[in-house]
Amino acid sequence: MIVILTGGTGGAKLIEGLSHEIDPAQLTIICNTADDFVLYGLNISPDLDTIMYTLAGLSDPAQGWGIQGDTFTVLQQLEKLGGETWFRLGDKDIATHITRTRLLRAGLKLSDVTDRICDNLGIKARILPMSDDHIETRVETSEGVISFQEYFVKQHWQPEVKSVFYAGVEKSRPAPGVVEAIGSAAGIILCPSNPVTSVGPILAVPGVRNALMQVTAPVVGVSPMIGESAISGPAHRLMAAQGLEPSALGAAKNYADFLDQFVIDSEDEALTSKLETLGIGVVATSIRMKSLADKQGLARQVLALVDK
Amino acid sequence: MIVILTGGTGGAKLIEGLSHEIDPAQLTIICNTADDFVLYGLNISPDLDTIMYTLAGLSDPAQGWGIQGDTFTVLQQLEKLGGETWFRLGDKDIATHITRTRLLRAGLKLSDVTDRICDNLGIKARILPMSDDHIETRVETSEGVISFQEYFVKQHWQPEVKSVFYAGVEKSRPAPGVVEAIGSAAGIILCPSNPVTSVGPILAVPGVRNALMQVTAPVVGVSPMIGESAISGPAHRLMAAQGLEPSALGAAKNYADFLDQFVIDSEDEALTSKLETLGIGVVATSIRMKSLADKQGLARQVLALVDK
Repeated sequence: MIVILTGGTGGAKLIEGLSHEIDPAQLTIICNTADDFVLYGLNISPDLDTIMYTLAGLSDPAQGWGIQGDTFTVLQQLEKLGGETWFRLGDKDIATHITRTRLLRAGLKLSDVTDRICDNLGIKARILPMSDDHIETRVETSEGVISFQEYFVKQHWQPEVKSVFYAGVEKSRPAPGVVEAIGSAAGIILCPSNPVTSVGPILAVPGVRNALMQVTAPVVGVSPMIGESAISGPAHRLMAAQGLEPSALGAAKNYADFLDQFVIDSEDEALTSKLETLGIGVVATSIRMKSLADKQGLARQVLALVDK
Repeated sequence: MIVILTGGTGGAKLIEGLSHEIDPAQLTIICNTADDFVLYGLNISPDLDTIMYTLAGLSDPAQGWGIQGDTFTVLQQLEKLGGETWFRLGDKDIATHITRTRLLRAGLKLSDVTDRICDNLGIKARILPMSDDHIETRVETSEGVISFQEYFVKQHWQPEVKSVFYAGVEKSRPAPGVVEAIGSAAGIILCPSNPVTSVGPILAVPGVRNALMQVTAPVVGVSPMIGESAISGPAHRLMAAQGLEPSALGAAKNYADFLDQFVIDSEDEALTSKLETLGIGVVATSIRMKSLADKQGLARQVLALVDK
């Protein structure tokens, strides 16, 4: 079993590649839930949704979120009824949120709800939320403390960021199976996800980082950064706000206590010796994943490192 | 101000006619809510919805429920996710239920929620739920006690009905404004709605029947029955189960303590003398409303009786 730690967009690309290279039933995916939020009274789990839709073959590769070809009839009507519409919820996507909200209100845990939705979507991989507890990434900006979705989607990551914290994480517990999956994994893959708002919250759930430090199986990461910028999104700004150098090196330093191999972009090959002094093996290759062939190619290289 | 008591389909036809004959701002509509139910965790008020959509010009005249031209993308996806789909919820329609559910959960009363949705849909008439309390029409059938929606929509009114009751009605109170509107009305119109499951629950809310008995303004009803059958739906079966004669006469007997005039179909003209012995004035005319012209024609006749 291969265990994958991921957020949304960037991670979904690598996971799509991986799902074409090995049997998805061999994948256990631990997914960030600190971006989860409630809109129109519906429980939305953006990263879980992106990963589920990717593995169900429903995702929209062009925009990186939502369901391909989805319509926006409900949203348009919600707008007429006075609702906010800054978060684009498609009609099929809303069916997921209605189902999740109903099951959570019926008393099921997020991990059980996720299991059930995955079953109904025919997903063979196992997708685990990092925790069943409520954890929320909060962004302290020059204009006040807001949620990550408000910062990222509503404000288009324009406000200056002073700090980021994960509200509720101290008292949280990993979802059932998370620590066990890490402990028994044949290999662990850290997706090219935002180190602060995607991988960061997973590592902050008490017990997860410890479990990663104790594994003997190879831990292989893919850099979310090329040069001083994130491949997509605001990771570089958030890293800088958290005192991390906005680069592949900065990301790797954050994972140095458990990371064995780091795949960086060829453009960053000059970082190799610095990474090696952290005790991390380095592979430099093209890590931009535009086509399915790119995704599969990178997935193959990552799997080769895991197999070593 | 004209006060209207109504259920869904049949009442909506007359109300559509009325809204073309007088300024809708002069209408206060008291609507049955005992068919309200929760599906997929969403609060659905079928009669309020039908009346709102009718007055907003959104209704589907062919099917008598929902929004014209609505799509069913969410429902199709809910089905894939394991949901029941016996109740046909359109996408635009779902936006109403999401909004209602969100506002109710935020602590608003159903009457406040209805006000807000009506405002956003540009409805000039005042629509009041009969009560803000939870009241539920239960149908005792040969196969057990089920909700009215299960009996009507899911089971296509096939099970034999033993009795009907309104769970929760004894402890309920009329919604704010209901009794006041009746007391100060220039005229009251009883729509051609199911006497057992639409008008019955309204009259059963403590204080409503009393308020109707005390008004001096004319109270004019339109029969929901022609011969021994309801114009649409299962009213005749439910009336029989409740010991009411399934006819215009049976309906009128149920309202005799407050009804001044009853508009019946020309086919039922033979009932005139029996109705008059109840102290009820009778007008026999065509009460089937197929076209908008039919609806307006009947509305004009009803308004003439109210104006007397």
